[in-house]
Amino acid sequence: MDWGSTRLRAWACSRDGSVLQRADSAQGAAGLAPEQFEPALLELVEPWLTTEKRTTVIACGMAGARQGWIDAPYSAVPCRPLSVERLIEAPVTDPRLRVLIVPGLSQASPADVMRGEETQLAGVLAAQPGYRGLVCLPGTHCKWAELQEGRVIAFRTFMTGELYALLSQSSVLRHSLHADTDTGDGWDSNVFVEATRQALGHPEQVWAELFGLRAQGLLHGQAPATARARLSGLLIGAELAAARSLWQGRKVTLVGNIGLPALYLEALRAQDIEVQALNTQRTTLDGLTQVFTLISAESQETTR
Amino acid sequence: MDWGSTRLRAWACSRDGSVLQRADSAQGAAGLAPEQFEPALLELVEPWLTTEKRTTVIACGMAGARQGWIDAPYSAVPCRPLSVERLIEAPVTDPRLRVLIVPGLSQASPADVMRGEETQLAGVLAAQPGYRGLVCLPGTHCKWAELQEGRVIAFRTFMTGELYALLSQSSVLRHSLHADTDTGDGWDSNVFVEATRQALGHPEQVWAELFGLRAQGLLHGQAPATARARLSGLLIGAELAAARSLWQGRKVTLVGNIGLPALYLEALRAQDIEVQALNTQRTTLDGLTQVFTLISAESQETTR
Repeated sequence: MDWGSTRLRAWACSRDGSVLQRADSAQGAAGLAPEQFEPALLELVEPWLTTEKRTTVIACGMAGARQGWIDAPYSAVPCRPLSVERLIEAPVTDPRLRVLIVPGLSQASPADVMRGEETQLAGVLAAQPGYRGLVCLPGTHCKWAELQEGRVIAFRTFMTGELYALLSQSSVLRHSLHADTDTGDGWDSNVFVEATRQALGHPEQVWAELFGLRAQGLLHGQAPATARARLSGLLIGAELAAARSLWQGRKVTLVGNIGLPALYLEALRAQDIEVQALNTQRTTLDGLTQVFTLISAESQETTR
Repeated sequence: MDWGSTRLRAWACSRDGSVLQRADSAQGAAGLAPEQFEPALLELVEPWLTTEKRTTVIACGMAGARQGWIDAPYSAVPCRPLSVERLIEAPVTDPRLRVLIVPGLSQASPADVMRGEETQLAGVLAAQPGYRGLVCLPGTHCKWAELQEGRVIAFRTFMTGELYALLSQSSVLRHSLHADTDTGDGWDSNVFVEATRQALGHPEQVWAELFGLRAQGLLHGQAPATARARLSGLLIGAELAAARSLWQGRKVTLVGNIGLPALYLEALRAQDIEVQALNTQRTTLDGLTQVFTLISAESQETTR
C-alpha cells in the first residue's frame, strides 16, 4: 500500500511481485485518526483477505507519520532506503492482518524529511542494482536524492507542486489562470519551456514575474492556458536553478513519465540533460515488493 | 475613503485636510456586488451626511476595479498619480452623495497594475512636492514605484505578502509556523534579519530553504516564532534581491512604519540603505485630500 496524505493505493501481489489486484480510495492519511486506518484498509481490500492465513500488508507513506496510524521513526541518511529491522508493526484487531509500516528518511542538515519516496528509491535500486547517481521524484513536494552503494547519501525537498497549487487556486493569480469559458486543460508547451529557461537564467527575478501573470491577463488578455504554462515553467525553472549543482553535467533518473514528472523531463531535456524516466507505479511496486523479499530472506535466516 | 479588497476605511475631513471623524468596516470591495457599495457606504458614514448640501466622497482602491462599484479604467504610466479628468463618478441614488472614484495605474511592459497605491504616491508628492526617487509601498502586494517630476515613471509589484499568508496559513509549513501552545505573536528579529541577508546573498536558494522550515520543526523542534521570522525574512529578502537594481545605492521612501512596512525598514537598513518611513494613514489622507484640492482648483477655474 502507498498510503499518502490524500490517497490510499493498494495492490495485491504474488511472491514474484506481479500484480493480482489493485484498488484505491480517497481515504488518505491526512483525514484519518489512528483508529480509522484499519477500517479504511478493510473497506478497500477485505475481499482480498482469507481466513486460512494471515496476509502481510506493507504500507509506505504518511500512514507512518506522527499524526498517522503509528509513528514510524525516520531512518537518518546516509542509510539504505529500506531496512527490515526498522519496519513498524501497526496495531490491528483483525486476525487476518499483519501490517508493517515503512519508515521515512530524515537528514539532519540541511534539515529534511521524506515519507513514501524512500520506497520508490528502493524500487529504483531493485530495478537497477548498484545504481549510483541522482534521482528526481516530482510531486507536491519534489525530492532530489543521491544514491551511492545502495544507500541514500543526501536529499533535498522543494515545495514547487504545493506552491503551484496555492498560487493557481488560492492567490490573486487564480483569476488569470482560470476562466469561466476555459476548460482548464489548455497548455502551451513553448511558453512552459521558455519560462523554465528564463527562470534558470535569472532565478532571482522569478519573484518579480509572478504578479505579471495577473497584469498580463488584465491588460493584454493573456489566455489562461498561457498563464498556467508560464507559472508552471517559472516555478519548475526556479527549482531547477536552486538544484543546479545537483544535476548540472550529470544524468538524471526521474520517477514518473506523465503529468507533473513529464514537465520536469521537458525542462531538463531543454537543458541538454540526459534523463531516464521510470514508471511511477512500477517503481513504487518494485520498492514495496522489495520489502517483502527482505522480510522473506530474514525469516529464512531466522529459521535456518 | 480607502476601499480595499477586504476593508473599507473612511475619514471625514475639513477643507484643510484635518480629520474630523473616522470609521471603518469589513465591507471590502471583494465581497460586494456593484449595487451593494452605496448601502455599505451609507451604513458606515450616514451620520456624517447632511441634507443641506451634497457631500463629495473621494474613494480609492478596489472600488474602481472591473468587479467593483464601477470600472475606473487605469491611467497608463508615465503619468501623474492622480488626474481630475480621469475621476469616475459612481452611480448613487441618495441625493446627499456625490462619489468620485480614483482610477488605478497600469504599465504596459512589464505588465503591471495598481489600485489604491497611486493615491498614496500622490500623498508622498503632496507632502514633499518635487520628490524624485523610489517609493516602496509594502502590503499584500508590495509596490515599488519611481517618481520623477510629479509623475509615476514605472513600478513593479511583488506578491510577497500574499505568498507569506498562503505559505503560513495553507501550506504544509503551517504546522511548523503555528503551534497549539503558541500565541502566534512571538518573533525573532535576529533570525529575520539573518534570513534576509541569506536570501539577498543567494536568492536562487530560497526555493530550497522553504521545506526546511517544516523539517527543522519536525527534527530539531524549531520554535514557531523562529520559523515565522525565518520565512518572512526569506521572502522579503527574495523580493529585495529581485528589486536590487531599484534600491541599491539609493535612498528609499517607505510608506508605513509599523507592522509589515517595519520589516522592510529593518531589512533595508541592514543593507545600509537610508530609509525615510512615512505614516501610512497620513500618506493616504494626503493623497485623498489632494484630489479634493485638485477638484476645487478645477471648479474655480471653470467658474472664473
